[in-house]
Amino acid sequence: MEEKKRTEIAALGEFGLIDRLTENLPLKNASTLKGVGDDAAILDYKEKRVLVTTDLLLEGIHFDLTYVPLKHLGYKSAVVNFSDIYAMNGQPRQITVSLGISKRFSVEDLEELYAGIRLACDIYGVDLVGGDTSASMTGLTISITCIGEGDADKTVCRNGTKENDLICVSGDLGAAYMGLQLLEREKAVFAGEKDFTPAFEGREYLLERQLKPEARKDIVAELAKRDIVPTAMMDVSDGLSSELLHICRQSGTGCRIYEERIPIDYQTAMMAEEFNMNLVTAALNGGEDYELLFTVPLTRHDDVAAMPGIHIIGHITAPSLGCCMITRDNAEITLRAQGWNSLAEDSPKAEC
Amino acid sequence: MEEKKRTEIAALGEFGLIDRLTENLPLKNASTLKGVGDDAAILDYKEKRVLVTTDLLLEGIHFDLTYVPLKHLGYKSAVVNFSDIYAMNGQPRQITVSLGISKRFSVEDLEELYAGIRLACDIYGVDLVGGDTSASMTGLTISITCIGEGDADKTVCRNGTKENDLICVSGDLGAAYMGLQLLEREKAVFAGEKDFTPAFEGREYLLERQLKPEARKDIVAELAKRDIVPTAMMDVSDGLSSELLHICRQSGTGCRIYEERIPIDYQTAMMAEEFNMNLVTAALNGGEDYELLFTVPLTRHDDVAAMPGIHIIGHITAPSLGCCMITRDNAEITLRAQGWNSLAEDSPKAEC
Repeated sequence: MEEKKRTEIAALGEFGLIDRLTENLPLKNASTLKGVGDDAAILDYKEKRVLVTTDLLLEGIHFDLTYVPLKHLGYKSAVVNFSDIYAMNGQPRQITVSLGISKRFSVEDLEELYAGIRLACDIYGVDLVGGDTSASMTGLTISITCIGEGDADKTVCRNGTKENDLICVSGDLGAAYMGLQLLEREKAVFAGEKDFTPAFEGREYLLERQLKPEARKDIVAELAKRDIVPTAMMDVSDGLSSELLHICRQSGTGCRIYEERIPIDYQTAMMAEEFNMNLVTAALNGGEDYELLFTVPLTRHDDVAAMPGIHIIGHITAPSLGCCMITRDNAEITLRAQGWNSLAEDSPKAEC
Repeated sequence: MEEKKRTEIAALGEFGLIDRLTENLPLKNASTLKGVGDDAAILDYKEKRVLVTTDLLLEGIHFDLTYVPLKHLGYKSAVVNFSDIYAMNGQPRQITVSLGISKRFSVEDLEELYAGIRLACDIYGVDLVGGDTSASMTGLTISITCIGEGDADKTVCRNGTKENDLICVSGDLGAAYMGLQLLEREKAVFAGEKDFTPAFEGREYLLERQLKPEARKDIVAELAKRDIVPTAMMDVSDGLSSELLHICRQSGTGCRIYEERIPIDYQTAMMAEEFNMNLVTAALNGGEDYELLFTVPLTRHDDVAAMPGIHIIGHITAPSLGCCMITRDNAEITLRAQGWNSLAEDSPKAEC
C-alpha cells in the first residue's frame, strides 16, 4: 500500500490550516456578499425568509472512522444540514463549518474531509462562508450550520397539517439503518484483521444510503413545478414514526398510515431477513433516510400521486384517533418514537 | 454542603431534555419569525444584511470545569459570539446552541449552562432559535452560531483601513489572560484539597474578565450616535497583535502602535508583576479580551478622542513599514501573532 503523505497540523499553524482548507472557494450565490475571512460572513436575503439549521456530529457517537471514509463523512455532514432546509421547502445557500481536531489527524485528513464538504457544496450550490477550527482532546467534532432561503408564503413548518390531509413520503425507508447494521457486523467480524474483504456485494445501495446520503432537492423542485405547497414537511432523520409524531403533536392531529404502503427497497428487505430483524420496525424507526415526509390537502391527491418517487402512505386524522399504523393483517398499532434516542441510549441525536 | 438534585438525562430522553431547556423562550426580535421546534428557524431580515458567525468550545481546550461554573460558561459562550457580530458593526439577533454531553452531566447541570446562555440572550436582546443536542463520548462540547443584522452601508470588515487611519481600542487589554493565569495557579496550588479559599481578593476584575466577559454593544451604540463608521473593525479574541496583523494583511497596510498608549488595568499590571511576566506581552498576545479594535480616518480624531473608554493607540502606515510597536524607550519591535495557537500548541482556536 502506498504511504500517504502526512503533514502535521502544527506545521501549518491555525491560520495556515484555515487558509489551506478554504482556498479557492468561489462564491455561487447572490445572497453571499462575504464568505470566509472576517468576524462574520455577510449575507443579503432581501425579501426572502432566512432559514437556519445546525447539526453537531461527534466521533464515536455519530460516526465511526473505522468504516466511514473522511470524504464521505464531510459530504454527509453537509448534506444532512441541506436536508433540514429542504424540509422547510427552502434552498440551502451557505454553511459554516466548525471542526474540533485531535492530533491524530493530519492536514491531509482534513483536506479529505473538506473535499467531501466542498463536493456537497458544489452539487447543491451552497457557499462555505466561515467556521471555527480548534484543537480537541479526543476525536473529531464537526458542527455545521446551514443558512437557506425560502419564500415568505411557501415556507413549510411542522405545525400546519389538517385532518384528512394526505401523508406522503419520498424514496424508500430503512436502507440507511440496514447499511449501518451491515457495516457494524462486518466491523465486528473482521475486528483485528487487516486487508479483509467485507461481504458488501449486492448491498451497495444500503452502504450508499448510510455513507453518502443525498438530500431531496429534486422533490422540493418537483413540488414547486406542480405548485404544491405542503401543509407540513420534515426530513426523515430520526425515523418515520418519530417524525410523524412531531408533525401530529405540533399540528394537534392524529394520523393513520398503512404498513403495506411504506416504501422499502428490495436490498433493505433482504438484509432485514438475513439479520432476522423486523423490516417494518427498521423502516419506521431506523432513521437517517433523509427522505421528505410531507402532507398535502386531499384535493391535491392526483398531483402528488403523479409525482415520481412519492408514496402516499396514509392520512391525517382527528387528534382523538391517535397516531397509528394499520398492519397488513388489519391490526392497528400505536406509533412510538423508538428512533435514535441519543441521551438515553447512546445513539445519535435530537434536533430542536 | 447541600446535596444538589441530580436528574439523569436519560430520565427525560432527548426531546424531553430539549423541551425542558427551551421552555419559556419568548422571542424578542421582529426578525425572528420562528424559533426552536422545526427543521430550521425562520428569520426575516428584510433589507438588512445578515451576519453569521460561529464558535466551537471544547472541554479541556477552551474551558476547565474545575474552575469555570457552568452558568458562567454558558454566558461566555454566547457573549463571545455576540462580540463577533458587534465587530462587524452589527447587532446580534439570534443564536443556535448545539451541545455534546457526556453522562457525567445531569439535567440540572445543563439547566445551569442554559441559565447562563439565557441571561446573556436577555441582556443582549438575542433570541435562542434552535440547536442540536447529542450524547458525547467525552466531555462537553458547545457550538454556538450567531446571526445578526447590519445596515448595508455600515457593515465593517477587516479590509477597509487606509494609510493614516487612527487605530483605536476599547476598554483595556490583558486582564482576561491574567485572570486565566490566576485561576490556573490556584488550581495547581490547591489540587486535591477541598474547601480551599483561593487568593482572589483584589483580583475580582481579572476573574470577571476571564469568566464572564462582556461584548461591547455599548461601543457600537456610541459609534452610531457619533455617526462614526470605522474603516475596519475586529474584536480582540486572539490578542491585539494577532488582530492588528489580520487587519493590516487584509487591508494591505502596515501599522504603528505605541506601547505607552496600550490600555492596561491596574490589577493586570499588579498580577503580571507578581507572576514576573512581561506585561506588554500579556496585553499584546493574551487574548479573550473581547474589546473592539477599530480604525477611523484621521479626520475623525476629535470624535473618537471624545468617546468614553476609547484609546487611540497608533496609526495605519504604508505596507512597506511593516507592523510594529514603538516601545517606551523608542525602540521599534515587529508585531507577531503569538496569541492562541490552538493547533500548534494546544491553546484555544482560530476563526475563519
